[in-house]
Amino acid sequence: MKEKTYSIGVDIGGTKMSGVLFDGAHVVADYTLATPKDDLVSFINVLVALIEPLKERAKKGRLKIKGIGLGIAGALDIPHGVILESPNLPVLDGFNIVEKLKERIEPEWETALDNDANCFTLAEARAGAGRKYQNIVGVTIGTGLGGGWYYEGRIYHGVSSSSREPGQLIIDYTTGLTIEQAFHKITQSNPAILAEEAYRGDPLAEKSFGEIAMLLGSMFANIATILEPEMIVVGGGVVQSSDLFLNQATKTMMKYLFNPQTKKVKIIKAKLGPLAGAIGAALLISHNT
Amino acid sequence: MKEKTYSIGVDIGGTKMSGVLFDGAHVVADYTLATPKDDLVSFINVLVALIEPLKERAKKGRLKIKGIGLGIAGALDIPHGVILESPNLPVLDGFNIVEKLKERIEPEWETALDNDANCFTLAEARAGAGRKYQNIVGVTIGTGLGGGWYYEGRIYHGVSSSSREPGQLIIDYTTGLTIEQAFHKITQSNPAILAEEAYRGDPLAEKSFGEIAMLLGSMFANIATILEPEMIVVGGGVVQSSDLFLNQATKTMMKYLFNPQTKKVKIIKAKLGPLAGAIGAALLISHNT
Repeated sequence: MKEKTYSIGVDIGGTKMSGVLFDGAHVVADYTLATPKDDLVSFINVLVALIEPLKERAKKGRLKIKGIGLGIAGALDIPHGVILESPNLPVLDGFNIVEKLKERIEPEWETALDNDANCFTLAEARAGAGRKYQNIVGVTIGTGLGGGWYYEGRIYHGVSSSSREPGQLIIDYTTGLTIEQAFHKITQSNPAILAEEAYRGDPLAEKSFGEIAMLLGSMFANIATILEPEMIVVGGGVVQSSDLFLNQATKTMMKYLFNPQTKKVKIIKAKLGPLAGAIGAALLISHNT
Repeated sequence: MKEKTYSIGVDIGGTKMSGVLFDGAHVVADYTLATPKDDLVSFINVLVALIEPLKERAKKGRLKIKGIGLGIAGALDIPHGVILESPNLPVLDGFNIVEKLKERIEPEWETALDNDANCFTLAEARAGAGRKYQNIVGVTIGTGLGGGWYYEGRIYHGVSSSSREPGQLIIDYTTGLTIEQAFHKITQSNPAILAEEAYRGDPLAEKSFGEIAMLLGSMFANIATILEPEMIVVGGGVVQSSDLFLNQATKTMMKYLFNPQTKKVKIIKAKLGPLAGAIGAALLISHNT
């Protein structure tokens, strides 16, 4: 029997960052801190403060950590570990986060970096809603719209190993409006408040969710037309309010798909909850299973 | 040295069908006939009449044919060789074309079926504009808009081995308008006549090509956002008039792409001309090279 491997995964969000100590199948420990947004030095100090207790926990349990994975939104140079452009944390633009981590935490560890929505997708594919499937698209619905594709046992990265998002799909060729821009317009960049209003019965907010359903249904249809996955796993903060739009979005997708085979795609809610991104980051380091 | 392998490829279009005898790298012979549209019996007879001279040519040259590949537009059940729905030749709906060919031509030959745009993409990837690339999207612009994706040495088919087209992408979520429907509207389903008008200097036709450029630019951008290929090879009948729209479409695509890495995608004109589909169909049968 192979020795169990452990890794740390960190999901760096615009408001908080979560870290997990992971054994390839289970979260052994997790820790969450608010993300400092103003300067790089505070950011790094808090990132180190997030990781240290997990490292300590492993040490106490004599668990050997193989490496650390990081997930973050934005345009990344994944092979070199560089954040090219972070929409939520501009203070990180151009920052080689992987090099800095090696220097500050543990030079011997393996390191890996990927987009947060790719990490979400990897986690749901290997340990969540997609466990019994092979060809899986993950979509995250929060303030923005992210996504990833799990195919042939790994996340697909395109030729440059960068990361792209389904929210960047153009939905009006005359103006260049993207799906994410339309989403921001409808939700006024605050889907959580809009959901509260809809639950209180506000007719305008309910109408907005009808529009969101059509928009997301179109996005699902366009993803399915190009990739034809077995399933699309939907996660992110707004999934807590999925009863406001997910059935209708699925119906819209079906209406907008033409190939009878492509219509077999399933729309499924994510299973792993708010730690999915950190679990996926931990899964960037290979585990014995 | 391995013995050279030969195959026959047939591209079945709405107005004509072309066949090639192919040696894995070169067309040895080609033959084109008008497609009978009215009844299945005439269709099959003409298909057989297209293939027989190519078979004869091989026999005379003592070239051993390994198999035959067919390319056709529409929804296909590729593993079973069935045409589910043919937009151009409804008389073929539900027809098991592969079984019939085996029966009528040569039961010993290998057989293969794929979508015509997938065949185009395979041909350009292996023997045309994409020869030095690994991750290639092919797009065909004719009366309709087709496409295929060549990745890891083969055409990607999604989970069901069906075929889907980029023209089916939704470009207006409020109405469900597809890119192909918008294209039909602008070209009034006759891009060749519109191109003639534009070449004669008709200002309305020129304006329509401006709109086509924005539409195709959006389609290229959406393909690149999801797949991030190295190149998009553009073929089909309308490419003869590509000076009317292709530069502008490429500029629109660049404007509509956000990730600096994704912007590296090249838009390239196809190299193989009108036999590309038939060559790709011949390449469905594996060759010694």
